[in-house]
Amino acid sequence: MSEVAERRRPGRPRKERGAGSARTGILRAAAEEFAERGYEAASLRAIARRAGVDSALVHHYFDGKADLFAATLEAPLRPDRMLEIVLAGPRDAVGESLVRYLLEQLDDEKSARRIVVILRTVLGSGPGTRMVREFLTREVLSKLAALSDEPDATLRAELAASQLVGVMMTRYGLQVEPIATAPADELVRRVGPVLQYHLFGAAGTPVS
Amino acid sequence: MSEVAERRRPGRPRKERGAGSARTGILRAAAEEFAERGYEAASLRAIARRAGVDSALVHHYFDGKADLFAATLEAPLRPDRMLEIVLAGPRDAVGESLVRYLLEQLDDEKSARRIVVILRTVLGSGPGTRMVREFLTREVLSKLAALSDEPDATLRAELAASQLVGVMMTRYGLQVEPIATAPADELVRRVGPVLQYHLFGAAGTPVS
Repeated sequence: MSEVAERRRPGRPRKERGAGSARTGILRAAAEEFAERGYEAASLRAIARRAGVDSALVHHYFDGKADLFAATLEAPLRPDRMLEIVLAGPRDAVGESLVRYLLEQLDDEKSARRIVVILRTVLGSGPGTRMVREFLTREVLSKLAALSDEPDATLRAELAASQLVGVMMTRYGLQVEPIATAPADELVRRVGPVLQYHLFGAAGTPVS
Repeated sequence: MSEVAERRRPGRPRKERGAGSARTGILRAAAEEFAERGYEAASLRAIARRAGVDSALVHHYFDGKADLFAATLEAPLRPDRMLEIVLAGPRDAVGESLVRYLLEQLDDEKSARRIVVILRTVLGSGPGTRMVREFLTREVLSKLAALSDEPDATLRAELAASQLVGVMMTRYGLQVEPIATAPADELVRRVGPVLQYHLFGAAGTPVS
């Protein structure tokens, strides 16, 4: 059980609470539900029940399961939203747009620190790993993979994601220079074509 | 001070020990020295002094500072050695050789688990982050960067490294399918050209 979950004493009567604490109560219930059941099996109805509120209130505060999940992680980046925005644009700009969006979201100290904590969680052995894996598979990789109807679409999506994760690790985690402070435009120019290649290129094509 | 360091009681007389425990004593002293002073400032002489042995004995067991450092991390991969081997081959095979070597070293359960622990350490806020950053800068990135005399050589090396780190994160950390179990040959074919592009390509060149 998570630290947050332990804080609420069982059997303690719920008081009438303001809007802020109703939202907080839903977030706590969601954190428990995701940790216990994983992203895939968790349901908004069960979260509402755990929080002792009506399902409609959950929908009032959060725009679906992905939104609620991102809120419990305090995620500085919404990879599912990022994809929606990027995919609305032209296909030959997908690579550069993905990098640009990622850097726009993370290039401030607080967001960078938070993404590093989330990356650490992913590498742990606790429930966080499974939650994030399920979330990424369901909300991100499958959408990226839908860009192509080739049989290797999912592998392509994961390789594109791997390049982005590597940029996060070196720029925000390891913080080696010059990548830690390189201008976003330079990284967009250098990394964009790699994503384009992973997603749409002929694998094994030499690159100049 | 590290857990290992605390175990030795100060003032307790050193007993005559066999070869195995002399090596272990050096490893403990090295772990302390690296944690306290970082990779860059740590010296083999200071490690010998800490371990209460002659410097010659350190050189007998370990092939220099990089070797000793990798041993204290129980690193399943020697990125500095990997580079030496790869750089001995033809330049247009550097990308594929790097990926192949990485996967050969890490594609067993124990090594994969260990590299995930090291990646976690890198993302922490303890002395591990600084140690690994200094090691990578000194022993890996600078050698990769020496492949080119362009002013952007270090950034290129870091971007190549970022793609490799991303593959480790997704294949061994997140373990999403299909990248978690994709054949090594397939990853070599797909990721090799990306490293080649980062290291030697014209940045921003569309790929495929």
